[in-house]
Amino acid sequence: MSEPPVRKHDSDFHWEGVAVRAYKQDVGVPYRDVTRQVLFDDPALRCQLRYFEIAPGGYTTLERHQHVHAVVIQHGRGRVLIGSTIAEVAPFDLVYVPAHAWHQFRANGDAPLGFLCVVNHDRDRPELPDADAVAQLRTNAAIAAFVRLE
Amino acid sequence: MSEPPVRKHDSDFHWEGVAVRAYKQDVGVPYRDVTRQVLFDDPALRCQLRYFEIAPGGYTTLERHQHVHAVVIQHGRGRVLIGSTIAEVAPFDLVYVPAHAWHQFRANGDAPLGFLCVVNHDRDRPELPDADAVAQLRTNAAIAAFVRLE
Repeated sequence: MSEPPVRKHDSDFHWEGVAVRAYKQDVGVPYRDVTRQVLFDDPALRCQLRYFEIAPGGYTTLERHQHVHAVVIQHGRGRVLIGSTIAEVAPFDLVYVPAHAWHQFRANGDAPLGFLCVVNHDRDRPELPDADAVAQLRTNAAIAAFVRLE
Repeated sequence: MSEPPVRKHDSDFHWEGVAVRAYKQDVGVPYRDVTRQVLFDDPALRCQLRYFEIAPGGYTTLERHQHVHAVVIQHGRGRVLIGSTIAEVAPFDLVYVPAHAWHQFRANGDAPLGFLCVVNHDRDRPELPDADAVAQLRTNAAIAAFVRLE
């Protein structure tokens, strides 16, 4: 058994025995005001279940990869870019990030955005957009206005 | 892409494009007042993410299996049996069901219990307790009082 049977939720999306970590270990990767908590990490599950929280005005890294994400919003408000789709999200909405889709999650300016994310335990590293990819993304005016790259 | 990028949550834990299904397909398996919704079922994820809802007074089947469960409570109140542990659960609590642990989820009498459950996409079939297993479980008075077998 790699986890206790029950871990209680404290207030504000913290859990007993679960550390609040930096969103990314990497230096120089652009994002703002995001934390990460690994809720389940049993190799038998073949997936990890993580909780991410973006503070008001913050955003995750714009990136893509082979592995997919299955996301359930838990609280707050925000917007997401998934491929060429930009959508508003609210509690309990489902977000699917398919393979190789550029994606970024942003919290609204006046609200945090907290979400669960299921991902393969073994997975490829994310790719950041190079100058050509940024130029291509910016040919879409809505995407150009949405993305945060610093 | 096997799912749309965003599926909105309607009220009361229903989602656009997600069918509310019977908890079990099998005939004669004991449970009461439970529905199942499959939220993500992409083979690339190697896991399914399901939402189960137990109506007030209802309960899932007492069972065990090789595969594990990673659960996040979403709303309502209830109690769970995981191996020899009985615990109260409330929104956002984490429940881990290890391999071969007898487990049952019960909603309180005055509240539903809704929870997300991550599980291997390919998995073994659940085992129900035979008379010997029931007798063994009932040697623990708290478990004897908890379990529902009809």
